[in-house]
Amino acid sequence: MTKNPRTPVTVLGLGLMGEALAGAFLREGHPATVWNRTAAKADRLAGRGATRAGSARDAVAAAPLVLVCLTGYDAVHEVLGPLGDVLDGRVVVNLTSGTSAEARDTAAWVERQGGTYLDGAIMAIPDAIGTPDAAVLYSGPRAAFDLHERALGSLGGTATYLGADHGLSALYDVGVLSLMWNILNGFLQGAALLGAAGVEATAFAPVARNGIETVAGWLAGYARQIDDGVHPAADSTLDTHLAAMEHLVQESESHGVDAGLPRFIRALAAEAVAAGRGGEGYTALIDRFRKPSDHA
Amino acid sequence: MTKNPRTPVTVLGLGLMGEALAGAFLREGHPATVWNRTAAKADRLAGRGATRAGSARDAVAAAPLVLVCLTGYDAVHEVLGPLGDVLDGRVVVNLTSGTSAEARDTAAWVERQGGTYLDGAIMAIPDAIGTPDAAVLYSGPRAAFDLHERALGSLGGTATYLGADHGLSALYDVGVLSLMWNILNGFLQGAALLGAAGVEATAFAPVARNGIETVAGWLAGYARQIDDGVHPAADSTLDTHLAAMEHLVQESESHGVDAGLPRFIRALAAEAVAAGRGGEGYTALIDRFRKPSDHA
Repeated sequence: MTKNPRTPVTVLGLGLMGEALAGAFLREGHPATVWNRTAAKADRLAGRGATRAGSARDAVAAAPLVLVCLTGYDAVHEVLGPLGDVLDGRVVVNLTSGTSAEARDTAAWVERQGGTYLDGAIMAIPDAIGTPDAAVLYSGPRAAFDLHERALGSLGGTATYLGADHGLSALYDVGVLSLMWNILNGFLQGAALLGAAGVEATAFAPVARNGIETVAGWLAGYARQIDDGVHPAADSTLDTHLAAMEHLVQESESHGVDAGLPRFIRALAAEAVAAGRGGEGYTALIDRFRKPSDHA
Repeated sequence: MTKNPRTPVTVLGLGLMGEALAGAFLREGHPATVWNRTAAKADRLAGRGATRAGSARDAVAAAPLVLVCLTGYDAVHEVLGPLGDVLDGRVVVNLTSGTSAEARDTAAWVERQGGTYLDGAIMAIPDAIGTPDAAVLYSGPRAAFDLHERALGSLGGTATYLGADHGLSALYDVGVLSLMWNILNGFLQGAALLGAAGVEATAFAPVARNGIETVAGWLAGYARQIDDGVHPAADSTLDTHLAAMEHLVQESESHGVDAGLPRFIRALAAEAVAAGRGGEGYTALIDRFRKPSDHA
């Protein structure tokens, strides 16, 4: 076996997540240069073999692959803005949270400097980085992803390439976060309701989890209905859903817990039923979600 | 091995679900008597060995264990109301969808007739009945559940006993349904948003599923926080969530898809942050869900 030299990497931004990223590269044997505005944040990593750069410029100049993990795009522009001349020929992978528009704008700017830009979204908490549980999504030029796929694989379980549109990782990110918030809100609603009947949340959790996993199994089929634009009620019609939603609203009201979310859910289905779609399945509501709302 | 006689069962109501229930009992060797207002619905089951009762009264009189699966509690009262005198000594298991109040009222009435009442909620589609995927929840007197646990096990994977309060299965039912609707709404929101960027729902589905399964793994820990009344931000603070929710709202608005659900999600977190709870974790929102809303 020949020794396989690992791509040198630079990590800009050493918050909890940035430190986890740099640590994962070190663990896989990548030479890692790190920089943070507050230099002390690099201490632990330096103790593990990272090179501490004296400036963001020195950090970027140290490696062909530059990961950016800052608090937001304002910080990204502030840090990278003066460094246009050293970006030429490098691949910048920006894992900072932001919108798809910010990702696309930053990509265009990096490319004007002669660099290549991948935008990424981390679907994991810092503790999961470097483990099979970490999923990271990337969008931008396929060739840049392919070139660094192995190095990026150091960050954990799944490195998924989404497509050439730099905005895709931000969009997938909020799409998945939206799902997460919805699940948590649904769980809190159920916990509040059952709590009013004397049931602990820990008793509800395993039943809730079963329900979540059941729905997770439906998504592939529902996605096909959405793409095909046909919404057969194989399991349950919107009429039936609406009747059960009415129970949810009634239970919430009669048990004295907030009924705002139940009423919101009911209103979506009621609107579709009123429009004559009560015999279709749940995915018929996609047309409602696609319709722009007023920007209130 | 001695032949083990199976408990005779009666099923009232042969819609898709009732037929599936009766079929599962037959498959496990239970003598089954069936009845439906429209008698023709019993034809297939009769062909498989079920006894067709000429009246609901005859059906109830035929077995110690009577399952009821009708379109709603109005139908339950209409069918069972005149049969009080034959309920004495029998166990009625009502799997009809309704509210916890309806379950408690019906339980009280059945008990006044000398019968025993279990309320149940089926967390499965008819096709899953009799398979490991079917979960059925029961509430009411423990002794009645224990007596018939084996027979009820014919219906599929998991027969879960929730507690003595007859209302519990209806409450768990809407709690889990609420979660399901929330997940589906979150998925539709993501699919609409990604669709506006040219991504098919079938491409989003596997990433969404990963996200769902990740959150499912958090629920047990979150449930403990809710029960303990402490909401540490081990993973992410409400401040951080709120910033990401802002991205979701912006993306929805700028991609011309409905922003109603994103705004609803953001408002919940914004309210908690405004109340000074931005440094806590997501489960701090439980206090908001517990607060009764006006009955608008």
